Amino acid sequence: MSRMKAVQVEAAGGPLTLVERDLPQPGDGHVRIKVQACGICHSDSLTKEGLWPGLQFPRVPGHEIAGVIDALGSGIEGWTVGQRVGVGWHGGHCGRCARCRQGDFVLCERAQVPGISYDGGYAEFVVAPVEALASIPDDLSDADAAPLLCAGITTFNALRNSGARAGDVVAILGIGGLGHLGVQFARKMGFRTVAIARGQDKAALAKELGAHHYIDSRADNVAEALQKLGGARVILATVTSGKAMSAAVGGLGLNGKMIMVGISEEPVEVPIAQFIMGRNSVQGWPSGTSADSQDTLAFSALSGVKPMIEEFPLERAAEAYERMMSGDARFRVVLKVG
Amino acid sequence: MSRMKAVQVEAAGGPLTLVERDLPQPGDGHVRIKVQACGICHSDSLTKEGLWPGLQFPRVPGHEIAGVIDALGSGIEGWTVGQRVGVGWHGGHCGRCARCRQGDFVLCERAQVPGISYDGGYAEFVVAPVEALASIPDDLSDADAAPLLCAGITTFNALRNSGARAGDVVAILGIGGLGHLGVQFARKMGFRTVAIARGQDKAALAKELGAHHYIDSRADNVAEALQKLGGARVILATVTSGKAMSAAVGGLGLNGKMIMVGISEEPVEVPIAQFIMGRNSVQGWPSGTSADSQDTLAFSALSGVKPMIEEFPLERAAEAYERMMSGDARFRVVLKVG
Amino acid sequence: MSRMKAVQVEAAGGPLTLVERDLPQPGDGHVRIKVQACGICHSDSLTKEGLWPGLQFPRVPGHEIAGVIDALGSGIEGWTVGQRVGVGWHGGHCGRCARCRQGDFVLCERAQVPGISYDGGYAEFVVAPVEALASIPDDLSDADAAPLLCAGITTFNALRNSGARAGDVVAILGIGGLGHLGVQFARKMGFRTVAIARGQDKAALAKELGAHHYIDSRADNVAEALQKLGGARVILATVTSGKAMSAAVGGLGLNGKMIMVGISEEPVEVPIAQFIMGRNSVQGWPSGTSADSQDTLAFSALSGVKPMIEEFPLERAAEAYERMMSGDARFRVVLKVG
Amino acid sequence: MSRMKAVQVEAAGGPLTLVERDLPQPGDGHVRIKVQACGICHSDSLTKEGLWPGLQFPRVPGHEIAGVIDALGSGIEGWTVGQRVGVGWHGGHCGRCARCRQGDFVLCERAQVPGISYDGGYAEFVVAPVEALASIPDDLSDADAAPLLCAGITTFNALRNSGARAGDVVAILGIGGLGHLGVQFARKMGFRTVAIARGQDKAALAKELGAHHYIDSRADNVAEALQKLGGARVILATVTSGKAMSAAVGGLGLNGKMIMVGISEEPVEVPIAQFIMGRNSVQGWPSGTSADSQDTLAFSALSGVKPMIEEFPLERAAEAYERMMSGDARFRVVLKVG
Repeated sequence: MSRMKAVQVEAAGGPLTLVERDLPQPGDGHVRIKVQACGICHSDSLTKEGLWPGLQFPRVPGHEIAGVIDALGSGIEGWTVGQRVGVGWHGGHCGRCARCRQGDFVLCERAQVPGISYDGGYAEFVVAPVEALASIPDDLSDADAAPLLCAGITTFNALRNSGARAGDVVAILGIGGLGHLGVQFARKMGFRTVAIARGQDKAALAKELGAHHYIDSRADNVAEALQKLGGARVILATVTSGKAMSAAVGGLGLNGKMIMVGISEEPVEVPIAQFIMGRNSVQGWPSGTSADSQDTLAFSALSGVKPMIEEFPLERAAEAYERMMSGDARFRVVLKVG
Repeated sequence: MSRMKAVQVEAAGGPLTLVERDLPQPGDGHVRIKVQACGICHSDSLTKEGLWPGLQFPRVPGHEIAGVIDALGSGIEGWTVGQRVGVGWHGGHCGRCARCRQGDFVLCERAQVPGISYDGGYAEFVVAPVEALASIPDDLSDADAAPLLCAGITTFNALRNSGARAGDVVAILGIGGLGHLGVQFARKMGFRTVAIARGQDKAALAKELGAHHYIDSRADNVAEALQKLGGARVILATVTSGKAMSAAVGGLGLNGKMIMVGISEEPVEVPIAQFIMGRNSVQGWPSGTSADSQDTLAFSALSGVKPMIEEFPLERAAEAYERMMSGDARFRVVLKVG
Repeated sequence: MSRMKAVQVEAAGGPLTLVERDLPQPGDGHVRIKVQACGICHSDSLTKEGLWPGLQFPRVPGHEIAGVIDALGSGIEGWTVGQRVGVGWHGGHCGRCARCRQGDFVLCERAQVPGISYDGGYAEFVVAPVEALASIPDDLSDADAAPLLCAGITTFNALRNSGARAGDVVAILGIGGLGHLGVQFARKMGFRTVAIARGQDKAALAKELGAHHYIDSRADNVAEALQKLGGARVILATVTSGKAMSAAVGGLGLNGKMIMVGISEEPVEVPIAQFIMGRNSVQGWPSGTSADSQDTLAFSALSGVKPMIEEFPLERAAEAYERMMSGDARFRVVLKVG
Repeated sequence: MSRMKAVQVEAAGGPLTLVERDLPQPGDGHVRIKVQACGICHSDSLTKEGLWPGLQFPRVPGHEIAGVIDALGSGIEGWTVGQRVGVGWHGGHCGRCARCRQGDFVLCERAQVPGISYDGGYAEFVVAPVEALASIPDDLSDADAAPLLCAGITTFNALRNSGARAGDVVAILGIGGLGHLGVQFARKMGFRTVAIARGQDKAALAKELGAHHYIDSRADNVAEALQKLGGARVILATVTSGKAMSAAVGGLGLNGKMIMVGISEEPVEVPIAQFIMGRNSVQGWPSGTSADSQDTLAFSALSGVKPMIEEFPLERAAEAYERMMSGDARFRVVLKVG
């Protein structure tokens, strides 16, 4: 006998609340996923606090979803019940707008986000459109896969498209949820990897994650320290401070590029003369699609990249959320559901 | 009987002065050029006013030099007396530094500039290192070639390396010495060409130069006007105002890039969220080498691109210089020498 | 009162036949187009002669379709009745296969072709999936647009993605239906354009189309003639002879690339030592998507590129088809329908 | 008291002979290197057998030279006596030809090769032009550095410029002197690495070197085996058989490229339809410059890539040469000199 009810965690303006609802049914072009694990991301506060324009309560947060396909809606080919899949920030696209027509789905004018556009992964079950699915490799656990679907893809995809070549100096600015994965990816791609963070606390960890060099941005001038290493070919800026980014651009080497994946309302200040005399650049990078997620998961399994996580059961979602928001978690918090 | 003396225009802290000097002799790896025309550039004020660090007076300004090889020093192959050649801002490189070893001569740590590192083209004769020479095509006049060696190469080389493809929206920010060439190049490369300048004065001219669209930055919001055209794939910023550049970055379309060739001490302010959501970038571009100059001249002859110039004889160099500095010249001032 | 019947030209194993059928109705995600013009392409013989694996008779040929949207199926956004649109070889994709998930629709594993997968443009009306539509600019006629949707996009898209920069030597091998457009595009993109064809007949025409140089492959050694011009950065091979391509690869210059768009069963023979010592390459190029078609049409309108065509009314489709197959048409045959 | 004489191994048409000669003196722009190790390469037979056009006997072979700077000629900056340096196949360039002017030194029209253009590294001392020098990292031994200067740079530089991204399927065709390094580099760059060789002998070794997959080209159809892995993004062809390369091109995946670094007189046969439908390409790659060598050495030290070598003292050079030519060495033979 199949289940009729399922548990989920809802945001409705107040604290996150565990409720039981009817089992959701997948419509045309959708699948239902039995959630095994769901990562908690800072941007889940957009849901929890109702900050996303047009968000409708109640809404289940969560866009780092790892699970197993449980039911297929109509019109699904190439995916089967029982298959392990993940869904990340890029939770669907229209396929019809100018950007989709160029194959640039991640910038779809009507892009959907799980936990915002529809109910997300703080739940036993989630329904997602087929174009949002990424296959999970056998040798990657659900809990490890979850954060790779947002923090992982963002850094992996930025780095593999950065133009840096093996042996180039690549610096990761900020060692947190994104950065601790960025350091691992950079090392496994053959870059001379530099980790930059505030204080000496993370120095040892950075080396363990694979960094060849560590710069303490509290003690050292980041730009000068990078120039001593020859100048960075790429600085992947995972911090959420325009000021910290501006302080680092002076560390770019010849043809060096800063790639911004962390958002801040402060602008980055670009010194024109330096940029001209070094052919430098600053670029923004918008994560990736479900196909990119799939590549991220495959590469992580291939090369042994793993997020550092703290696990909580679904019932303790409110507590897990607070832990993530505290900034003390090392480095991602994951709800174990299945 | 060969000449023993030659006339040149010197900067020595005061007004530019016409003097007669011994004919210079080309050393090893150098050639002597009989100057036919020399363009005047705003950066000649670095020489005239002694602003370049380490500049030694007296010094002959001028780095937009078109002429004919008059004598060869030792060790010269592949260039002959009587051959028409030009020398631009990139007036020599060491061949030994890390950048030269990578073939990136324009960023040579010991790059030389005619009129700064050695006597330049406000003269009957100039001596230049062989690696600074660019061949001038038969069907390009000396006076037209001269400004192409600085204002021309800078815009041509930035545009051909911009990544823009035929049909893409390419905007030229600033219609002056560089911009009026940039518009022509952009059109001849098949771009949907947008000219941006202050006021309506230049609207008609911009169309004549080949612009498909004109934006009056005094009357219109540049960013909005560009977005109405679909957003720019490239904005070539030839202005010397960081503020004006910052005001235009909002006009970048998907994957759009601003390329800065005009220098300003004000930084460009990069709005991070926009850049991430549009995969936008800002890059500096440092002109090019003598090989790039040669390509610029060849392309200009091939496609009919010509600078708009005002001509003065060498004797009136001081007057010509003032005319250039006034900002009223349309658009480059050239000394006719030969 | 709306029409109930419409005329179309069917292939069914014998001669092309004009028949009247019920007006087709657009299903979900489809539109009905009132055809104004349809180009005839050599590959229409795949339909006429039943050579395409799995083709089902009767089938209306034609994949160079220009017309006006006449009716919308369900689920259509962003397209309106009365809008001028075109459909080319890329007549639809699944959106779900590995290639579509990467945005590479043209290589969709289930790509559809009008006139093969479904009834094409030798007809008063055609029904096509929305992802196959390209908008036609106001200032481009239907008859001119039609061949641009196949012969045009193939050459335009190959050239704009070729990596050649303005001023580079770009050769078009073969001046026929594709090549006569390739020469025009190459010229309008700012390339030093070389046309290569057999005999002197096409020399004058090639110059009119914009070629700077003409090589008669019957009289001259193509490779040597190209080397005299400095070697080709790109050779766009539009011929359907592997032998002719092999004979031309020796004309590649430094970093030169041959791009193959014409199909032949003979392989191209790559001389390894030359390729290593010149960093040369040979690449195949598979036309493009409807978004690429739209760019092709827009660029053609912008720059004045036009196909040379011979027009026939729909009723004379069989005759028009024979004319195309004869190889004597200059250079594309178009059915005028509307 | 300084030495006046030094030992070297000369080719003069017969067997390699050990002779004593006057210590060579470095001229302008040259340095003298005390050789510590020199690799033996198959192409040394060009010297030994006098096969290189214009080669003059006697000539000391050897272009995989690792040593210490022993004396500086005039005009040398940035290099010091006692510094560890290497010289590879790219043994000097003119700096003046069209290719050098574009910074493309490796394709210099007057490129020099140690052991061919001037006496090479089968010697106690060698004199080389400064532009041929590559710095050797402290933590790389002379014997390990030597083969990296030819076999190493060729594969490293081809791979890092291949366009493949981390996680892509990259196949190394041929596991010999070049291939056994190619496999290591590919793995350290984060590629899904496939080794292809004849027979089962090398299967275990390939895995040790880092290959994720092994294809026995004697037992399996290479193209089909690669397609089972998803198709190769890059096939690095290190074999010296055009036939073997032709047999592998069918294994290219979407946008897949074969890069040829092994030379063969047989052409590679390119199937046009496959190439068009997969956007495939075949490219030649000409090793690299001394700056590329320096990057190769730095990356090898950084990532732990090492050649497998057999060592011989300089006195046994003739024997060592025969061992290399036998094809049985695993995988490079190195003369220990210092």
